[in-house]
Amino acid sequence: MLSEFDLIKRYFKRDRPAAPGSRTVLGIGDDCALLAPTPGKLLAVSSDMLVEDRHFFAGADPFLLGHKSLAVNLSDLAAMGAAPLGFTLALALPGADPAWLDGFSRGLFALADEHGCELVGGDTTRGPLNVCITIFGEVAPGRALRRDGARPGDDIWISGTLGDARLALAACRDEAGIDRAALDAAHGALAARRLHAPTPRVALGRLLAEGALARAALDISDGLVGDLGHILAASRVGAVLDVDALPAGPALARQPRALRRRFTAAGGDDYELCFTAPVAGRDAVLAAGAACATPVTRVGRIAAQPGLALVDADGAPLDLGLRGWDHFA
Amino acid sequence: MLSEFDLIKRYFKRDRPAAPGSRTVLGIGDDCALLAPTPGKLLAVSSDMLVEDRHFFAGADPFLLGHKSLAVNLSDLAAMGAAPLGFTLALALPGADPAWLDGFSRGLFALADEHGCELVGGDTTRGPLNVCITIFGEVAPGRALRRDGARPGDDIWISGTLGDARLALAACRDEAGIDRAALDAAHGALAARRLHAPTPRVALGRLLAEGALARAALDISDGLVGDLGHILAASRVGAVLDVDALPAGPALARQPRALRRRFTAAGGDDYELCFTAPVAGRDAVLAAGAACATPVTRVGRIAAQPGLALVDADGAPLDLGLRGWDHFA
Repeated sequence: MLSEFDLIKRYFKRDRPAAPGSRTVLGIGDDCALLAPTPGKLLAVSSDMLVEDRHFFAGADPFLLGHKSLAVNLSDLAAMGAAPLGFTLALALPGADPAWLDGFSRGLFALADEHGCELVGGDTTRGPLNVCITIFGEVAPGRALRRDGARPGDDIWISGTLGDARLALAACRDEAGIDRAALDAAHGALAARRLHAPTPRVALGRLLAEGALARAALDISDGLVGDLGHILAASRVGAVLDVDALPAGPALARQPRALRRRFTAAGGDDYELCFTAPVAGRDAVLAAGAACATPVTRVGRIAAQPGLALVDADGAPLDLGLRGWDHFA
Repeated sequence: MLSEFDLIKRYFKRDRPAAPGSRTVLGIGDDCALLAPTPGKLLAVSSDMLVEDRHFFAGADPFLLGHKSLAVNLSDLAAMGAAPLGFTLALALPGADPAWLDGFSRGLFALADEHGCELVGGDTTRGPLNVCITIFGEVAPGRALRRDGARPGDDIWISGTLGDARLALAACRDEAGIDRAALDAAHGALAARRLHAPTPRVALGRLLAEGALARAALDISDGLVGDLGHILAASRVGAVLDVDALPAGPALARQPRALRRRFTAAGGDDYELCFTAPVAGRDAVLAAGAACATPVTRVGRIAAQPGLALVDADGAPLDLGLRGWDHFA
């Protein structure tokens, strides 16, 4: 049986030279990790906890779970415009299963290495499967993409596409309203990939922050309508959202309009950025998207009047009865 | 029913001016918290995950659990000699129980306020009860109390007392070997307090680091023998430990010698500091302990020869068959 310390050593402690630009002075194996912050930068910190049967299915592929656990945290850094530095991993496991640990750690490190984000410490214990990552990044003072900076007249933008993750979940649950013929094997796989292996928009977030292009931003994890509501509340503004302008993922794009509207506007698990930017900056936003190969789409406008109005392509009001995800509702 | 956002607002978001010396630029309510690191300091980071039925009993007093969840993290900062800055809290809850949340948050904030350590962000979700805290502190470069600095000839020191937490656990489990008459109500309460409300030795750790008094340190969470083994391995040294010199807690001190030896040497849940220091610094170590009203006791010596030798008061070898706690053993 693998001991706690062998487990850490075998799967999580990597004996190799620090990456160029590493700020890690002391990594795994002491009471604390030690990081040397870049002078003049702010430290951005976020924690996300993923629970079995809540955020992922029991028996989920460990490689994909390793990827997703870090991806949702990188997405929070992206939404702040911060450059990734490192992360801690706290892991409760029902047992020390070598095959699971091997897959999980490979998925985790594949994404970590892509973003130069080092695992610096953490905790392992026995318990119901739970993955808690705390991530650290850096951003210049005054450049962070906060939720409270949206102003009336700003465009509302979305990165990438929405709703394919929700479609994949709906397919797993065999929900009504899905066009099964349109969701063939290839498109089912596309949608599943968005659910299980989201792409954090780190490069786009950094370009938006460094160029001072966006006024407010967040990442869409609980559905656009609910998450945009946080920007509106923090900025004390309202918005008009063109539901038919929302970019649907390639699998969802083939589905009936009612499903498309619901899943793009309030799907959940999208991990795309929603941000606001002044009208004068449209070309710069498009250029930032192009520079990091991330599509960006204008989907509405910030208004002085509080409240979120959903409209269709003709500007007519839509009541879809939507709201964001609430873990305790 | 309390929503996720109401829960955070009611129990965890505090509307009050930042404390003097706060490094928090942006707290709860955005994608990330933003901290402004003190120029020239290193950032110390640690995560601990507490799982029901593993680290605490089902039905544990939520006030004490709030205290302990933060205390074990502060203890990691103490072991590094770092000054607390702030922490994130990720919480999986079976449900949103107002009485539990009220007690937990009060216990958490009472200790946080004592140490000027701000809650800056986190996550809440539904799931089997799990408390994951990541804590941040600061320490001057070259002053951090690492595990790899012990040298042959160093004294081994212990803060406070050992074993009362383990005695309380033994009493709960009705383990053999306890002198029940000696463990009366008053001493039972003393022991229980050490188990449920440990005192992190933050002030002592900072004095040891700032004065460059200790060469190596860690906090004792899994039992002294196992934890001291980490210092020995990291420093590539050995040690002789005088088991009869180990300071027993007031409840354990009244127990039979066999129990006293076992529970001081390998109890667990002590959250005291174990550190090594040069012989020439004995007076300075005693003065540091006195300055922060934390007893410090010399209990052994670092040796060049690898291995940990346990001896009794006469220097005769003792084989107690002890080892540290392993969550996966």
